[in-house]
Amino acid sequence: MTRPAPSRPALRDDVRIVDTTLRDGSHAMAHRFTESQVRATVRALDAAGIEWIEVSHGDGVGGSSFNYGFSGTDEMRLIAAARDEARQAGIAVLLVPGIGTVDDLRRAHDAGAEMVRVATHCTEADVSPQHFAAARELGMQTCGFLMMAHKTSPADLAKQARIMVDAGCQAPYVTDSAGALLMHEARARFEALVAEVGDDAWVGYHGHQNLSFGVANSVVAQEVGVRYLDGSLCALGAGAGNSPTEVLAAVFDRLGVRTGLDVGRLLDAAEEIVRPYLTRWPKMDRNAIVQGWAGVYSSFLLHAERAAERYEVPAHDILRRCGELGYVGGQEDMMIDVAIALAQELTA
Amino acid sequence: MTRPAPSRPALRDDVRIVDTTLRDGSHAMAHRFTESQVRATVRALDAAGIEWIEVSHGDGVGGSSFNYGFSGTDEMRLIAAARDEARQAGIAVLLVPGIGTVDDLRRAHDAGAEMVRVATHCTEADVSPQHFAAARELGMQTCGFLMMAHKTSPADLAKQARIMVDAGCQAPYVTDSAGALLMHEARARFEALVAEVGDDAWVGYHGHQNLSFGVANSVVAQEVGVRYLDGSLCALGAGAGNSPTEVLAAVFDRLGVRTGLDVGRLLDAAEEIVRPYLTRWPKMDRNAIVQGWAGVYSSFLLHAERAAERYEVPAHDILRRCGELGYVGGQEDMMIDVAIALAQELTA
Repeated sequence: MTRPAPSRPALRDDVRIVDTTLRDGSHAMAHRFTESQVRATVRALDAAGIEWIEVSHGDGVGGSSFNYGFSGTDEMRLIAAARDEARQAGIAVLLVPGIGTVDDLRRAHDAGAEMVRVATHCTEADVSPQHFAAARELGMQTCGFLMMAHKTSPADLAKQARIMVDAGCQAPYVTDSAGALLMHEARARFEALVAEVGDDAWVGYHGHQNLSFGVANSVVAQEVGVRYLDGSLCALGAGAGNSPTEVLAAVFDRLGVRTGLDVGRLLDAAEEIVRPYLTRWPKMDRNAIVQGWAGVYSSFLLHAERAAERYEVPAHDILRRCGELGYVGGQEDMMIDVAIALAQELTA
Repeated sequence: MTRPAPSRPALRDDVRIVDTTLRDGSHAMAHRFTESQVRATVRALDAAGIEWIEVSHGDGVGGSSFNYGFSGTDEMRLIAAARDEARQAGIAVLLVPGIGTVDDLRRAHDAGAEMVRVATHCTEADVSPQHFAAARELGMQTCGFLMMAHKTSPADLAKQARIMVDAGCQAPYVTDSAGALLMHEARARFEALVAEVGDDAWVGYHGHQNLSFGVANSVVAQEVGVRYLDGSLCALGAGAGNSPTEVLAAVFDRLGVRTGLDVGRLLDAAEEIVRPYLTRWPKMDRNAIVQGWAGVYSSFLLHAERAAERYEVPAHDILRRCGELGYVGGQEDMMIDVAIALAQELTA
């Protein structure tokens, strides 16, 4: 395996806003995106100036499964449809090693994906190098998600980012999967990553609105040198959703930070394309707030609600217990055990 | 008229969170709160440790009118019901000079209100002194809202706060009626007010989530010495709603800032008491974002939507035009003219 040289792609604007409506939003849609929804959303994002659009199962390529939920439409077909519609935007996919494989990545590349975001738990970057190497050999751009970034220190997170960058990652991300990072906690992680890898790569931030800090942390991020920022139209994403792309665009417009985005078109895209197909508008309800407060993986939300219904225990209690137990992405099935234990406690 | 000496009430905790679900939330409920909704909400807030609960028409006492919308239930009855339910909490009312009168204030006091928040446009504090004097003579606690605080400079806002404090206001507020203040803009105003009146009064912050900065600005506020912070359960309030009380409580819990609030009880109150009666969950939709982006009074939202329906023009275009024209609270009727002008432009 040859190690690719670190590289930072040229930036068109002051910050690069990556839209993940069609990937993280897949969690909120229970992975039921249709091809026509994907086509309409990509057309609108592309026309508004978005450079990169992420499309895949919420848990990344290969996520369609009993454990993570089956896709309504094959994600390769959705990726190909997105590629077909985008005039200037590139198509990205998520890949979580252990869920998706290098073979899934090749199929996504064949379907039209030109960027992969390889996601690991924040302390497990060492499972990512073979995927970065494969992506770079395919000529794809690369980002790296360090998920549940609140679970480790800024200094350790920076070391994990270094592992990714040395393996070919062009933009390691502070990925706040639980929407738990307060502003000073986010700032410390941004600064640590920029100091560690800033000469070789861009630093990114992926936020959730569980405590409504997704946009605020994005502003902090831009101030300290983070250049990739994730958003979703209508905040569509796990938990209380992602930083809304249209709000990021409006806020950076007010700040005089160039995004290359058309605010009016994004507002129209959110309202006229995405809002009509929403099955739920992501919001700061009790479950989502508990996720941010207790630091629980945002995509646990629908799983917890299903377990709650089946075992007749409150979903927010399941989530809070998951936070106490320190569960992370990949342990979705443990929620069944938590629900059973809570049900037994209630009847004891 | 005797001028009361400036005074800062003793604080029980590090910050005092004032809940305005039953006042600002009245906008989102089209002023149709029922007595039983008020009773249940006050019981839950009181049990969770909230010290002050604001109850009145969304536009303050005396707001029930053709221009601002008629109340479903007489607000004096709602105030009395709230007073009846609260064990440890005090009841506050809003008063906008020009809408409410000193006579309305006396009636609210007779019904059980022990605090008044006198609200003026951010450059018009000089219409407030007689109301503060009347309130202090009644033995009421006093706050002062400097509304649309983004429309004037930090230095001028501080001068306006000084006018209020010298008239008997115990806590002048940076009131971000449009949800337009970015964090550095909010910080500059907080610092200016704390520097100007901090020895004589507490400084407050009332935020809206139109750009999702209500909670983030509250954190900034606490850092620089602001001690009164407004919130609403489920964010219930004008525009995209207020800083959610339950999120403020969870965030300050994480920060180790004492609020005296029970996070779990507030989460339950939002989910089990308020959520069931919501007619709309306040959200960052196109109209609300435009209010924050263009700096438009949050309570214009329902008025703009009604004018939009009547004249068949988009509500967000009405709001954006109101921002361009610089309309402020009290000019709700001008939206009709804006809608007619837009309709004529569309057919021209």
